[in-house]
Amino acid sequence: MRAAFYISDGTAITSEVFGHALLSLFPMEFEHHTISFVETIEKAEEAKAKINAAKKRTGEEPLVFHTFVNPEIRRIIDSCDAVIYNFLEHFVSPVQKVLGVEAKPKAHRTHSIHENSYDYRIDAVNYALANDDGSNVTNYADADVILVGVSRSGKTPSSLYLALQYGVKAANYPFTDDDMDDLKLPDFLKPYKKKIFGLTIDAERLIDIRDNRMANSRYSSARQCRMELREVEKLYKKEKIPFINTTKFSVEEITAKILSEMGLQRYKY
Amino acid sequence: MRAAFYISDGTAITSEVFGHALLSLFPMEFEHHTISFVETIEKAEEAKAKINAAKKRTGEEPLVFHTFVNPEIRRIIDSCDAVIYNFLEHFVSPVQKVLGVEAKPKAHRTHSIHENSYDYRIDAVNYALANDDGSNVTNYADADVILVGVSRSGKTPSSLYLALQYGVKAANYPFTDDDMDDLKLPDFLKPYKKKIFGLTIDAERLIDIRDNRMANSRYSSARQCRMELREVEKLYKKEKIPFINTTKFSVEEITAKILSEMGLQRYKY
Repeated sequence: MRAAFYISDGTAITSEVFGHALLSLFPMEFEHHTISFVETIEKAEEAKAKINAAKKRTGEEPLVFHTFVNPEIRRIIDSCDAVIYNFLEHFVSPVQKVLGVEAKPKAHRTHSIHENSYDYRIDAVNYALANDDGSNVTNYADADVILVGVSRSGKTPSSLYLALQYGVKAANYPFTDDDMDDLKLPDFLKPYKKKIFGLTIDAERLIDIRDNRMANSRYSSARQCRMELREVEKLYKKEKIPFINTTKFSVEEITAKILSEMGLQRYKY
Repeated sequence: MRAAFYISDGTAITSEVFGHALLSLFPMEFEHHTISFVETIEKAEEAKAKINAAKKRTGEEPLVFHTFVNPEIRRIIDSCDAVIYNFLEHFVSPVQKVLGVEAKPKAHRTHSIHENSYDYRIDAVNYALANDDGSNVTNYADADVILVGVSRSGKTPSSLYLALQYGVKAANYPFTDDDMDDLKLPDFLKPYKKKIFGLTIDAERLIDIRDNRMANSRYSSARQCRMELREVEKLYKKEKIPFINTTKFSVEEITAKILSEMGLQRYKY
């Protein structure tokens, strides 16, 4: 299997995202290796040794994705027995021309702290944890969005991802078996209806997830799962609550859809 | 201020990461706009209208970063009154040549569910929540890493980010005032010493964060914060626990350093 390396003087997240996106276009498998914080000549030489070892082991030239600006480190990486892609470089001069401004590359700038985004995100994580799973129904005035859904439909991971990735404050509230006799929007949610976003999931998937947590229980029974999902979906439609089925979506997709449908601002920028 | 648009038929995360990395090289400010799930001609026309409106409003051609493969959607985006960067395209044919394999672009492939990575990550989130803040000290055999540190040094956001982004199971354990008289590694942590990673933080920053939570308390006093930090750092050194000071680092950087120093595998791939 051919090796791919994502390397950087910072987190290497940009190299990873770009390299993965590019390689996902090809119907084949790769060995993925990330080497972050390559900030010294010594670390660059270590990275080179790993890359060259991968060439020997696999018999094929590794693909190396990097964004180094330091000329000494670049020279070492360029001298590897590999195919090297410095994927930002190609775009710098055309963008420079358009902007009429000279690029000023700095080391690991992209995923470091800037513009107070850190505080937003930590605040949002604390908010999500304090308002997880209906644990507090008095803070909804501060929410950017309130996710609702049955147990195990994806509310908690989505709330946390919204907080960590985008600094968006997401509360989440579960509809439980007790609510199901006559499912309505609880009174404490009504003033915040415009912030509510619903999650649902395929019954088969829900049964599976719940069975992993509590095998052979009423909670995980097909009958109970189907009933709960039928009721919440009926409620979403009646109350015109926007919602998505999370079954086939990653947490990145679920949260991107929530941001898009709710017109939410991303505080991360 | 010039507008930048990140658009895609999926989450637009790849476009955002690439565009941000590129624009961060230029010492100027941009208006950032993300348009995700542009999957139809109609949505492409809507995106075009927004892009052209930004041109009118700002008087400057917006920069548009996209990865569309659908030719009809591309034609619409290409016809915008803007500078268009299809940043994957440039690399497809050289990579194709190296691999000797034809690219098979599929719509929104990058950040969707694949290779069972979803389950890993949700399991890891559940693990991080169940083992947050020392709430359970009997599950450490299952941990990939155990973060330790004083209250508010960044343990919880780091644990959650490791889970959501990489599928890594991170427990975290706080050293509190009660531990400080004679700070030692607790007995239940000793068998897992190789999994322990320490966080610390500048005293001034810690005082500030704690004061926001509990103003004028012993917990947030300069004396207490300094003492706790002195003690944990002494412990890290004595026990040879690897650690970092989180003050100047983003959660992306903290977790990338943890993965790198602990040699942890990223389950996301």
